[in-house]
Amino acid sequence: MKVKETLNVNLGNRSYPIYIGSGLLKDYTLIEKHLISQQVLIVSNDTVAPIYLDALITQLSASIKVDSVVLPDGEAFKTLAQLNKIFDSLLSNKHNRQTTLIALGGGVIGDMTGFAAASYQRGVNFIQVPTTLLSQVDSSVGGKTGVNHPLGKNMIGAFYQPKCVIADTSVLSTLPDKELSAGLAEIIKYGAICDHSFFEWLEKNMHLLLAKDPKALIYAIKISCERKAEIVAKDELETGIRATLNFGHTFGHAIETHMGYGEWLHGEAVAVGMCLAAKISKELGWLSDRECDRLSSLCAKAGLPVHKPKKMQPHDFIKHMKLDKKNVTGSIRLVLLKSIGEAVLFECKDNALISKIIDANMSD
Amino acid sequence: MKVKETLNVNLGNRSYPIYIGSGLLKDYTLIEKHLISQQVLIVSNDTVAPIYLDALITQLSASIKVDSVVLPDGEAFKTLAQLNKIFDSLLSNKHNRQTTLIALGGGVIGDMTGFAAASYQRGVNFIQVPTTLLSQVDSSVGGKTGVNHPLGKNMIGAFYQPKCVIADTSVLSTLPDKELSAGLAEIIKYGAICDHSFFEWLEKNMHLLLAKDPKALIYAIKISCERKAEIVAKDELETGIRATLNFGHTFGHAIETHMGYGEWLHGEAVAVGMCLAAKISKELGWLSDRECDRLSSLCAKAGLPVHKPKKMQPHDFIKHMKLDKKNVTGSIRLVLLKSIGEAVLFECKDNALISKIIDANMSD
Repeated sequence: MKVKETLNVNLGNRSYPIYIGSGLLKDYTLIEKHLISQQVLIVSNDTVAPIYLDALITQLSASIKVDSVVLPDGEAFKTLAQLNKIFDSLLSNKHNRQTTLIALGGGVIGDMTGFAAASYQRGVNFIQVPTTLLSQVDSSVGGKTGVNHPLGKNMIGAFYQPKCVIADTSVLSTLPDKELSAGLAEIIKYGAICDHSFFEWLEKNMHLLLAKDPKALIYAIKISCERKAEIVAKDELETGIRATLNFGHTFGHAIETHMGYGEWLHGEAVAVGMCLAAKISKELGWLSDRECDRLSSLCAKAGLPVHKPKKMQPHDFIKHMKLDKKNVTGSIRLVLLKSIGEAVLFECKDNALISKIIDANMSD
Repeated sequence: MKVKETLNVNLGNRSYPIYIGSGLLKDYTLIEKHLISQQVLIVSNDTVAPIYLDALITQLSASIKVDSVVLPDGEAFKTLAQLNKIFDSLLSNKHNRQTTLIALGGGVIGDMTGFAAASYQRGVNFIQVPTTLLSQVDSSVGGKTGVNHPLGKNMIGAFYQPKCVIADTSVLSTLPDKELSAGLAEIIKYGAICDHSFFEWLEKNMHLLLAKDPKALIYAIKISCERKAEIVAKDELETGIRATLNFGHTFGHAIETHMGYGEWLHGEAVAVGMCLAAKISKELGWLSDRECDRLSSLCAKAGLPVHKPKKMQPHDFIKHMKLDKKNVTGSIRLVLLKSIGEAVLFECKDNALISKIIDANMSD
């Protein structure tokens, strides 16, 4: 039996549906009904394109003009220079304001295609077809688009919403285990910051997700997107509560930036970041030993690292974290846990506390 | 007596004031009251910076941290690569989301700084200090920001509003005559498309504007910004009436693109474009001979060209005009005049008509 769920992200006149299910990519009417002209540009990367691009082009080409651009795969290529290749293709193929960009790939392709759509002729339509678990649960919701700068991640971008998201769990069959785990990190995050019962479900069903059981995946993706959509609907431009979605990310970005994009997967860095944030929460007397252990155990069960990279020292973290764009004042803004299922923002003025926890994270 | 006018651009929660007057740049409280932190980055070019940058930095530095970046002057440098220099400066100087970008220069600096502000950390504040007549009457209102691509003008950008605009007529004292005339082209445009009595005022007072009479300049800038603001308020995202602001621009962009950015000033190309559009309007039986002549006479009086570049043939225009981003269907969208003071959009399917008028424009 084919399972298909539709989740609506409610953002006024920028609302859109997320279709979640198995085999959705073969149902091209899902895409077709969101087009406003006969022009489409598919943006993909050189890992995903050989597997899925031709079939998608063939399906869509029956009725419309389809162009495509294939970028090199990886966070290291999330740059202005690569972004410009999308503009080159749009212009040389004479795409007008009624064109639609389709992102076929993971988070990097989604972020770059979204920013290209936001900026091309000051805004055209786009559709997300996330092909990794991470991008299905993370970039599907929230409208964050952009590219990296050598001095910081996602420093150049826009808030821009897609017309629809198609999260097809069958494409996860070709996803490497390491990347599946990276996606599970974000899924664990939703449980940790706002849904204790989902966290418990994950503790019981992690083996099904690791085995890529379609029903379990669809459920986990749906709950994750729902939780994120609820938070984003309350705070689209990230002036308050939305920042709790960055649980684990301040540390995580420091790891990614310091180690060089691509060395550590985003989800892996976030997993370590969540464990560090939990330990600080424990140090502040909010989280119990038991809760702190539950989080790191669940991460480990999902195949994720829970210890910082050996070669990173506390001052390496502090240096990068001070530059994080979520910082409002001179202090470092952290997302911590009051309990499993309840996150809070915390302006940390005590760098020594952060250093102490990071230092201890190596050997425990 | 110091004259200062304040015009409010009404765009809901994105509304902002335009201050128009003589000597305003010396009144740094105008800037200061729109800042939300102690960080400022001034973006300027190597023509304007030597004259005005140091004084502005000195005034602002009394209370805040001021950084600056100076880009090469000219439309040829309105590129993604130059834009990146603004991001380099923001990041290396650790600017956060509360920073304010100040554009000190003409339209190119305004457009690039605005797009940098729209994109840096997905959006920070910016203030426009336009230093050319063209940018005071054009980019002050409308929120269009962006950069060029080798295959088309303003193809990459965003709609993004400033916190305020400071149009100081005293900075026009150092503006070359050729650039003053280019600004007058846009001023004439407002009369032509929506204000017959302003057009008459211009016919009578053009000599005062050419002599840089402060009162006449302030009046002309204010009326121009008011007319544009009225149109933009009705149609912020350019889905309808706002397109009439492109009167003369479809032809003008073709001239700029074909001749290479910087060869023809934007206003000069627009002047020729307005004359061509008027002649097509006459050919369609809308404009009288007399009205058509009034427009070209006023352009000539303002020191503007009224004939196309000799080396451009009709097919050169057609080729570029077909790529214009205002085209919705395959036909070329033109802004024409029903009378002086009343513009209409016209989907022109008859390329031969356009060619005929362009061809005749060389020798008449």
